[in-house]
Amino acid sequence: MGVTRQLADYVARTTFQQLPAEVVRESKRCVLNYLGVALGASDHRAVHLLAEAVQEMGGNPQATLLGSRVKTSVLNAAMVNGAMSHLLDFDDTHLATVIHPTGPVLSAILPLAEWKGMDGRRLITALALGMEVELRIGTAVYPSHYDIGWHITGTAGTFGAAAAAAALLGLDAERITHAMGMAGTQAAGLREMFGSMAKSLHVGKAASNGLLSALLAGKGFTASTEVLEGRRVFSNVLAREYNLSRAVDGLGSDYLMLQNGFKPYACGVVTHPTIDGIRRLRSRYGIEPSQVREIETRVHPLVLELTGKRAPRTGLEGKFSIYFCAAIALIDGTAREPQFTDEKVKREDVVALRDRVRAVVDPGLGEGQAVVTIRTLDGRELRERVEAASGTPGNPVLDDELMEKFMELVLPILPRGRAERLVEEVGRLEAVGDVSAIMELATP
Amino acid sequence: MGVTRQLADYVARTTFQQLPAEVVRESKRCVLNYLGVALGASDHRAVHLLAEAVQEMGGNPQATLLGSRVKTSVLNAAMVNGAMSHLLDFDDTHLATVIHPTGPVLSAILPLAEWKGMDGRRLITALALGMEVELRIGTAVYPSHYDIGWHITGTAGTFGAAAAAAALLGLDAERITHAMGMAGTQAAGLREMFGSMAKSLHVGKAASNGLLSALLAGKGFTASTEVLEGRRVFSNVLAREYNLSRAVDGLGSDYLMLQNGFKPYACGVVTHPTIDGIRRLRSRYGIEPSQVREIETRVHPLVLELTGKRAPRTGLEGKFSIYFCAAIALIDGTAREPQFTDEKVKREDVVALRDRVRAVVDPGLGEGQAVVTIRTLDGRELRERVEAASGTPGNPVLDDELMEKFMELVLPILPRGRAERLVEEVGRLEAVGDVSAIMELATP
Repeated sequence: MGVTRQLADYVARTTFQQLPAEVVRESKRCVLNYLGVALGASDHRAVHLLAEAVQEMGGNPQATLLGSRVKTSVLNAAMVNGAMSHLLDFDDTHLATVIHPTGPVLSAILPLAEWKGMDGRRLITALALGMEVELRIGTAVYPSHYDIGWHITGTAGTFGAAAAAAALLGLDAERITHAMGMAGTQAAGLREMFGSMAKSLHVGKAASNGLLSALLAGKGFTASTEVLEGRRVFSNVLAREYNLSRAVDGLGSDYLMLQNGFKPYACGVVTHPTIDGIRRLRSRYGIEPSQVREIETRVHPLVLELTGKRAPRTGLEGKFSIYFCAAIALIDGTAREPQFTDEKVKREDVVALRDRVRAVVDPGLGEGQAVVTIRTLDGRELRERVEAASGTPGNPVLDDELMEKFMELVLPILPRGRAERLVEEVGRLEAVGDVSAIMELATP
Repeated sequence: MGVTRQLADYVARTTFQQLPAEVVRESKRCVLNYLGVALGASDHRAVHLLAEAVQEMGGNPQATLLGSRVKTSVLNAAMVNGAMSHLLDFDDTHLATVIHPTGPVLSAILPLAEWKGMDGRRLITALALGMEVELRIGTAVYPSHYDIGWHITGTAGTFGAAAAAAALLGLDAERITHAMGMAGTQAAGLREMFGSMAKSLHVGKAASNGLLSALLAGKGFTASTEVLEGRRVFSNVLAREYNLSRAVDGLGSDYLMLQNGFKPYACGVVTHPTIDGIRRLRSRYGIEPSQVREIETRVHPLVLELTGKRAPRTGLEGKFSIYFCAAIALIDGTAREPQFTDEKVKREDVVALRDRVRAVVDPGLGEGQAVVTIRTLDGRELRERVEAASGTPGNPVLDDELMEKFMELVLPILPRGRAERLVEEVGRLEAVGDVSAIMELATP
C-alpha cells in the first residue's frame, strides 16, 4: 500500500475515542491559540483587503469571517481566516519542520463545522488528524523542501487542510487519496514572499485549496492517487531529498503534533532564543538601553537567513529583523504585537539600539538556542545561554501564559466576559454540541 | 530594472494600437478556438462537478459559466471555464514550451470583461499581453521546469492570467509587479495528475489564482516585487536551470504568441505527427485495419513519456496512449472528440489494432516530427515521414479548418445560426463594444 493511501486510511478510520488524551488536550490549546492570533489580526489592513475582495465576489452565508459579522462561503472564510491566523507571525510552530500547523488545517475545517453544525469531537478529531498528515508530510521532505525556498506551512498545510476537511466530511480512504492528490497539485508558497502580505495569503490558500480538494473529492472529482510516492509527485518535484517512511513511521501511535509549540512572541520563532536571553539579562541586571555598548547574539544559521533585515521600515518587516527584535526586547521587556508597529520600528532610540546589535552565526547552536552577550559602556560583559526557547517542547508555554496571550490579543475585539466564556467553551470543546456556538462567541 | 518590473512595465504601457496586426488576428483565432474547446467540454462530468461545487459556494452573478445559464463570481467562473477549456486536450499549444497559452489567460479575463462590460479591444490587448508574459516566463524556465515535473500551463499560466487581468483592470506597473508576485507564489500543478480530472483543474486554478492576484494587487495587497529574479523565487525554486533574459529579449517586437498552434486532434500534441502520418498513408493507400500486421511510429522521446499508456481504460486515458491514438486514426481516419470515448477505447477491434502498434523513440526526431511505417499482412511496407505536424507553426491550421473544428465542437450545444454569429462576432472582436454580448451568444 502506497504512503498516500496509508495516510488516507489512517484518516478515514481514526475516531475521537482512539485519540490519546494529550492529543485532545493539545488540539484544544491549538484552537485557543488560533482564535487568539486570528482575532488579534482581524483589524489588520491585509485582512480588510482580503475581506473586501471576497465580499465583492460574494458567496452563500455559510461561515463567519473571524472578527466580523460577515458570513460568506466556506472557501472564502477559509482563505481570509487562514491569512488572518498567520498575519501576526504569532501562530504555533512545530520547530522540527518550522511548520505553523494549526492555521491551514483549522481555517479549512472551522468554517465547514460551522456551516454543517458539527460537534466539537468531530472538529477535534479532524484537526488532530489533519495536523498529523501535515506534519508527517512536512517531516518527510524537510529540510530539502524548505531549503530550496518553499514556505512549508503553505505546501504541507494544503495536505493537512485537505485531510482534515475530508475527515470532517466523512470521506472514505479512496476519496481521501484523491483529495490529497488535488492538495499536492495545488500546494504552493515561496519563502521569497516573507515580509510581504503574500506570506499570510499562503496559509489562507492552503486552507481554501485543501478544503476545495476535499469538497471536490467528495463529489467524485479525481486526481493521481499517488501524489507522494509516484514519479512526478509532490515529494520529488518539490524536494531534492526526502524520506517517505518518515510520513508513516509510528502513524497512529506517535503524534508529531505533541512536538508543537506556542509562540510567546509575535515574531519569527528563530528570534525567540535571543529575545528570551535578553529578557533574562534585563530582569536579572536591570539593564537600560542607555547603558549598552553592544548586544551580541550567537545564533543558528537560519536566524540570519530568515530574520536578517538590518533596517526594517515597517512593523511587519520588524518581525524579520533579529536586530530590531533584540533591541525592542531590551527596551520594552517583551516582543508581543504592540512592539511591532511602524512607529516603534522607526523610533530614534530604537534605531540607535538596533544598530548596536550584532548577530553572529554559530553552527554549533540549535534553532532553539542562543548565547546573548550584553557589553555595557562601563565595561561589563553579561552573558546568557538559552537552551530551549520559550514555546518549544523543552520549554512549553503553560495554560496560564497561553490564556494571557489570548486575552491580550482578543480584548481589543471582544468584551472580557465573552472572551472568558470563549476560553471556557474551547476548554470543554469535546462536549460542545455545535461548533457554530463557538463562532458566535467569537463574533464582536 | 528587474525582469519582473520590465514585464510589468511592458504590460502597463502597451496599448491596442501598438499591437501588430498579426497579433490581433492570432488573438481572435485564440478566442474562437477557446470558445470551441470550452463549449465542447461543457457537458463533461468533471465540469458538472466543478460547477456544482461553485454553485454550492455561491457568488454574485458577475460572469457566465460557459455552456450554461449559470452566473457566478468572476473567480468561480475563471476556475470552471479554465478547467473546461483544457478538458478535451484540444486547446492551443505553443510547441517550444508545450504551454497551452489561451486557457489560463482568457479564462481569467473573459469573466472580468463580461462583468465590467468592457470592449473587445481591451480584451484583445489583455489577452495578447497576458499570453506574452506567460510564454516568455515559460520560455525562461523551459525545459528544466517541465522536466522536473511541473505542468507548465498551470504555472506559467498563473502569471499570464495575473498579467492579463491586471492589464484589463488598468493597474500601474508597480501594482502589476505585486500581482506577478502573488501569481508566482500560487503557481502550481504537477504532471503526475495527467490522465485525471485534476489536470484540467490546473488551468482553472491558474486562471482564478491569477485573477485573484490582480484583484488583490489592485486593492494594495503586497507581495515580493522580484518574483522572477530574487533569491528564493519562481525561477530558481521551480526550475534547476533558467535564463531570465529569454523573458525580456525582444519584448514588444517579437511576439512569442505567433508561434502558437491550434490542435486539429483532441489529444496530446506530441501524438499529432503520428496521427498525421497514419492519416496520409490511410488516404493514399486506402489501408484497412484488417490488412495491418504492424504499425511502427518513430517518435521524439517525449511522446512515450507523455503518452505511453499501453492499455487505456477510459476515453480520457486514450488521449495519453500513442497506441490508441494511432489505432483510432487508422480506423476512423481522424482523432477528434468523438474518437475519445470509453466505448471506443474498449472496443475489441480497436484494442486488437492498438496492440499491433509499436512506438520507437528516435532522439534524432523533433517533437513535431514522426516516421510512420505500416507493415501489411501481404508484405508491403508503407512509410510516411512527417516534418511538421498539423497545427504547428510550420503547418498551421487554416481559418476554414479552425471554423470547422469550432462548429463540430459547439453544434451539440448551440443552434447553427447562433454558432455562426458567434464566429462572426469573434472575427470582428476589435469592434465589439461590450464583450458580454459575445457571452450571451455563447449561452445555450
